[in-house]
Amino acid sequence: ITSKLPSVGTTIFTTMSALATEVDAINLSQGFPDYECSPELIELVNKAMLDGHNQYAPMGGVMQLREQIALKTEKLYGAKYDPATEITVTAGGTQAIFTAICTVVHPNDEVIIFEPAFDCYAPAIKLMGGVVKSMELQPPDYRIDWGMVRKLVSNRTKLIIINSPHNPTATILQKEDIDELSALVKDRDIFILSDEVYEHLIYDGATHHSMARYPQLAERSFIVASFGKLFHVTGWKVGYCLAPAYLMNEFRKVHQYNVFSVNSAMQTGMAQYLADENVYLGLPFFFQQKRDHFAEGLKQTSLELLPSHGSYFQLAKYGHLSDESDIDFTLRLTREAGVACIPTSVFYSRCTDHRIIRFCFAKKQETLDNAVNRLINFK
Amino acid sequence: ITSKLPSVGTTIFTTMSALATEVDAINLSQGFPDYECSPELIELVNKAMLDGHNQYAPMGGVMQLREQIALKTEKLYGAKYDPATEITVTAGGTQAIFTAICTVVHPNDEVIIFEPAFDCYAPAIKLMGGVVKSMELQPPDYRIDWGMVRKLVSNRTKLIIINSPHNPTATILQKEDIDELSALVKDRDIFILSDEVYEHLIYDGATHHSMARYPQLAERSFIVASFGKLFHVTGWKVGYCLAPAYLMNEFRKVHQYNVFSVNSAMQTGMAQYLADENVYLGLPFFFQQKRDHFAEGLKQTSLELLPSHGSYFQLAKYGHLSDESDIDFTLRLTREAGVACIPTSVFYSRCTDHRIIRFCFAKKQETLDNAVNRLINFK
Ligand SMILES: CSCCC(=O)C(=O)O
Ligand SMILES: CSCCC(=O)C(=O)O
Repeated sequence: ITSKLPSVGTTIFTTMSALATEVDAINLSQGFPDYECSPELIELVNKAMLDGHNQYAPMGGVMQLREQIALKTEKLYGAKYDPATEITVTAGGTQAIFTAICTVVHPNDEVIIFEPAFDCYAPAIKLMGGVVKSMELQPPDYRIDWGMVRKLVSNRTKLIIINSPHNPTATILQKEDIDELSALVKDRDIFILSDEVYEHLIYDGATHHSMARYPQLAERSFIVASFGKLFHVTGWKVGYCLAPAYLMNEFRKVHQYNVFSVNSAMQTGMAQYLADENVYLGLPFFFQQKRDHFAEGLKQTSLELLPSHGSYFQLAKYGHLSDESDIDFTLRLTREAGVACIPTSVFYSRCTDHRIIRFCFAKKQETLDNAVNRLINFK
Repeated sequence: ITSKLPSVGTTIFTTMSALATEVDAINLSQGFPDYECSPELIELVNKAMLDGHNQYAPMGGVMQLREQIALKTEKLYGAKYDPATEITVTAGGTQAIFTAICTVVHPNDEVIIFEPAFDCYAPAIKLMGGVVKSMELQPPDYRIDWGMVRKLVSNRTKLIIINSPHNPTATILQKEDIDELSALVKDRDIFILSDEVYEHLIYDGATHHSMARYPQLAERSFIVASFGKLFHVTGWKVGYCLAPAYLMNEFRKVHQYNVFSVNSAMQTGMAQYLADENVYLGLPFFFQQKRDHFAEGLKQTSLELLPSHGSYFQLAKYGHLSDESDIDFTLRLTREAGVACIPTSVFYSRCTDHRIIRFCFAKKQETLDNAVNRLINFK
C-alpha cells in the first residue's frame, strides 16, 4: 500500500496521554476536562434513549438541536443561520474540519494555515491533493502579519484556515485581524474555514470575533464549533458547522457519504440542554477562574508564563532553565516531575522549537494544585 | 464553489423518509428498525456516562470494545484480529467505508463496484480522484459473472468493493464467489473493501462468507461492520473496521484526522453488552421470522417476491402490474397505498430500471401486518 500520509505517526496527544498513564503523571497534555459534565445532560441523553431516539437522525442533524444552535448563534453573534440549509451537526469538530476541507479543496489548490496549528489541518489538505502554505507565527504574541499573508496568496489560494481562540497559543483574533482578513479576501475567490471550537473559552471580557459577526466574511466561511468543549464531553464527539446555504449544500454532499448522520440520542438530549442559555453564558467565567488559579500557582515555579486570552491552554517558556528540546523537556517533566504537557514544536511542520510547552488547565482545582506542587519541586 | 459531486442530490433515503412522514405512510423505505433496542443496552450506556466515560476515547476505540470485537470475530469466523493494531471503532459503517476508500484510492486508481450498490461507494471514490468501474448485476439472482469482472481489471485496479449480505438485493456471496475472488486477486495488488454490515442478518442456515474466514482474502481486506444493525440502534453511529496491521496503520492515519475517535460512553456500554454472545447468535432467527412473516403476507398481494437470503430487505417485482418507472411506482405506492419503499434504479449509476422495489422488514410484526393490509388493497 502506498501511504497517502507517509510522515504521519501517532499523534502527540495519544503519545502523551499514554505516557502520563504509564508513569502515573498528572495529565495536562491532551485537551480534555477531568471533571464531570452536568448530571442533567446525562439524564436528558438517557431519557432520549428511553424515548426511542435511537435510529438515524436526519442527515443535517436533529432539527431541535439545529434550532437551538441557530438561537445561540443569533444571541451571541447577531447572525441568522437557517437550520434547514445552513447548519449541520457533525461527529465532533474534527469531522467538520475534515469535511469542509474535503468539500472545497481540489488537487493543487493552495490552503493557507498559520503555525503553530492544530494537527488535523495539514493532513486533510494533503489527502485532498491540496498544497499547504503555512506561515509561522512568533511568540510571545503570535500575531498574524497580514502583509506576509498577502504575499502567500496566489490565484491558486482556495482556502484560509483560522482558529480563534487558538490552540495551542491561547491567543485570540482582534478586530484589526478581522479588518485585514476582510480586505484580503475581498474581490478574491477565497473561502475561510474558521475553527471556533473554543468560542466560549475567552477571558478578561474580550470579544470572540466569530466569522458569524461579519457578513462579508460569513458569506464565504465554514464555522466549526464543538459541543465537546461546550458541555465538557469531548468523548461524545458532537459538533457542528455553520455555512451559507451554497457552501453548506456542498458540505452536506460530503458529510452524507462520510458519516451520513450523528448520534441521535446525544443530539436530542443536547438540544434540550442547550435551550438554557446559562449553560454557555457562564463558561468564560468558569474557565477564567481555572486559568487564573493555575497561573497564580505557576508563578511559584521557575517557568515563564505567556498570556492566555482564550482556549483550554496555558503556554510556558522554560528556555532559561534548560537547553533541552521542547520534546525532551516535556518527556523529562512528565517522567521526573510527574506532570504531562505538550511541546509546541509539534504544531509546526518545521518542528520550530521556541522552548515553549503547553498545559491544559481544564482540570479540577485539586488537579491543578497537585500539578503546581509537583512543578514547584521540579529542578 | 466548484462542486466535487455535481450530480449528487438528496439521498433517496432522506427523500422517502420525509415523504413517508408527510403523507403518513408506513415507512418501509430507509433501512432501520421501528422497535426499541434492549433496555439493558441503554442502561449500560447510561451507566458508562454516569461512571465518567465522557472524554476522548482512544483513537482506535475503547479497548474493551475492541477486545469483544476480536472475540466475536474469532468465535464466528475463526479469525484472529489484534485489538491493538487490527481493529478500529468508527462513527458507523459509513465512516469506515469512506475512510477505507480515502486510505487506498489515489487519483486515477480504478475501483470495481457491483451495481445495484449502496449509495456511498461511488461518491467516496470520486472524491479521492478515483475512477469507478461498475458492473451491473441482473435480477432475479444478481450473481457476479467473474469472467466479466476479470475483463474489468486493469493494472490501475486498486480496490474491489463487495457487500454481503447485499443491500439492496438481499443476496449473499457463495463459496464459489470466494474462490473466484481469490483467484482473481492472487498475484495482483488489489485490495478488497468488504461491506459486511448485515453479517448477522443471514437466513435459512446459510453461511456468512466473511472475508475474515479466508486468510488469502483477509490479508488484503478492510472488513466493515455495524453495531447499528447488530444492536438495533442505527442512530448511534458506531461501527468498526477490521484489517491486517499494515492496512489498519494507514486507515488510522486517515481516521484520526477525519473523526479522531468515537463516542466513549456508547463504546463502553456496547463493550459490556457484546460480552454476551446471545445478543448476536439469536439475530439470524429474529430477522428470519420477520422476513418469513412479511413474505407470507406479501403473497396475498399482486407483487412478485424475489428471494431474500440476508439483510433487512425484501425485493418485489411489479412490472406485470404497471408500466410506471420504479420511481413513479414507489411514489404512487407511498401516496396511494400509504407504504413507502425504495426503487432499486437509484442503486444503479445508469438508473437501470428492472421494475423492482425494496422493502425494509426490520419492523414490528404489527407494522408489517398493517403494510401488508394496505398493499393488498392497492390497485
Ligand atoms: C483530538 S485530541 C486533542 C485534543 C485537543 O484538542 C488538544 O489537546 O489540542
Ligand atoms: C444511511 S441511510 C440508509 C440506510 C440504509 O442502509 C438503507 O436504507 O439502505
